[in-house]
Amino acid sequence: MKLSLPPKTILLPSPVLIIGTFGADGKPNMMNAAWGGIASSKPPCISVSIREATLSYHNIIYTKAFTVNIPSEKHFREADFVGMVSGRECDKFKETHLTPEKSKIVNAPIVKEFPYALECILVRQVDLGTHTMFIGEIAGMVADSEVLSSNQLPDIGKVRPILFGSFGSMAYYSVGDKLGSAFSVGKELHQDMI
Amino acid sequence: MKLSLPPKTILLPSPVLIIGTFGADGKPNMMNAAWGGIASSKPPCISVSIREATLSYHNIIYTKAFTVNIPSEKHFREADFVGMVSGRECDKFKETHLTPEKSKIVNAPIVKEFPYALECILVRQVDLGTHTMFIGEIAGMVADSEVLSSNQLPDIGKVRPILFGSFGSMAYYSVGDKLGSAFSVGKELHQDMI
Repeated sequence: MKLSLPPKTILLPSPVLIIGTFGADGKPNMMNAAWGGIASSKPPCISVSIREATLSYHNIIYTKAFTVNIPSEKHFREADFVGMVSGRECDKFKETHLTPEKSKIVNAPIVKEFPYALECILVRQVDLGTHTMFIGEIAGMVADSEVLSSNQLPDIGKVRPILFGSFGSMAYYSVGDKLGSAFSVGKELHQDMI
Repeated sequence: MKLSLPPKTILLPSPVLIIGTFGADGKPNMMNAAWGGIASSKPPCISVSIREATLSYHNIIYTKAFTVNIPSEKHFREADFVGMVSGRECDKFKETHLTPEKSKIVNAPIVKEFPYALECILVRQVDLGTHTMFIGEIAGMVADSEVLSSNQLPDIGKVRPILFGSFGSMAYYSVGDKLGSAFSVGKELHQDMI
């Protein structure tokens, strides 16, 4: 039975995005954001929504840059910790024993221990109530060679990213089995497409 | 070893969003979009990026409304098919044997067979090269009673949403095991937070 429910920001799955920034003082910070997604193919853009109360918000306004680091499931405790404390109160890199490495192409730090990161330059800012969408053009990508597929792109089966189950579970999940190939399995519905 | 790679729109995981719209003629359509995410908590907003070439783009401009339907893994073939053909060429509901049901609160159809949907009113449009971000305020949500958690919200373990592995795999994946609770497991790094 279909029930009508109050509006909620529940998208399943939601990603776990660790946003890397530098402060005006050059200090690296990171935050955990679940509100974000790819925004455009050309130019390649990603959006991340952040509250003004955060240190990361002000860092992005100042540096016009950020990284989107994708943690692997083995770092789910560190990713969660990053979302529980403010960079104003502690050095999150030090507390998690993660390592900031300056991106070679944007003014933001990369999390060395995470399998890959998108290096972004701020191109648009959209204020929407509690959150501001920061739209970044993806200027480059860094990845561990071990997580690449044969086409030299990050492979979900090797990256093992974390899923956020949102408010229905308030829990993190791992990636499960492969279901089938995109732009392919749909043909099974129609013999005349094969 | 960390490699520098060309910029690519690879976010892991990416969601599989089936966008429901009506045309000016009242005909229901749906498309498969992976570029999107939650945009704001209050007002509750979601963004979906769509190319101008699609029928859905013009439907949203006309009706100022859309639904975001989350398919369960059992419908991964239907979801893939929806992304392979245009609503200008065929009736995708008819071809997939899925059922459009008019939302009670926005001018867009819900996919009856999918576990839940967000009902959205267009509030902002951001043009970004190939894609336009449509930002919708989530005005309501409909869900099958069987997929709700004890707090009456869609539960990822019951919804069983599909993950898109993006260009590194071009494949769909299922949700795997629960890793731990959000805003909780991070405390295990620091005994003084418990």
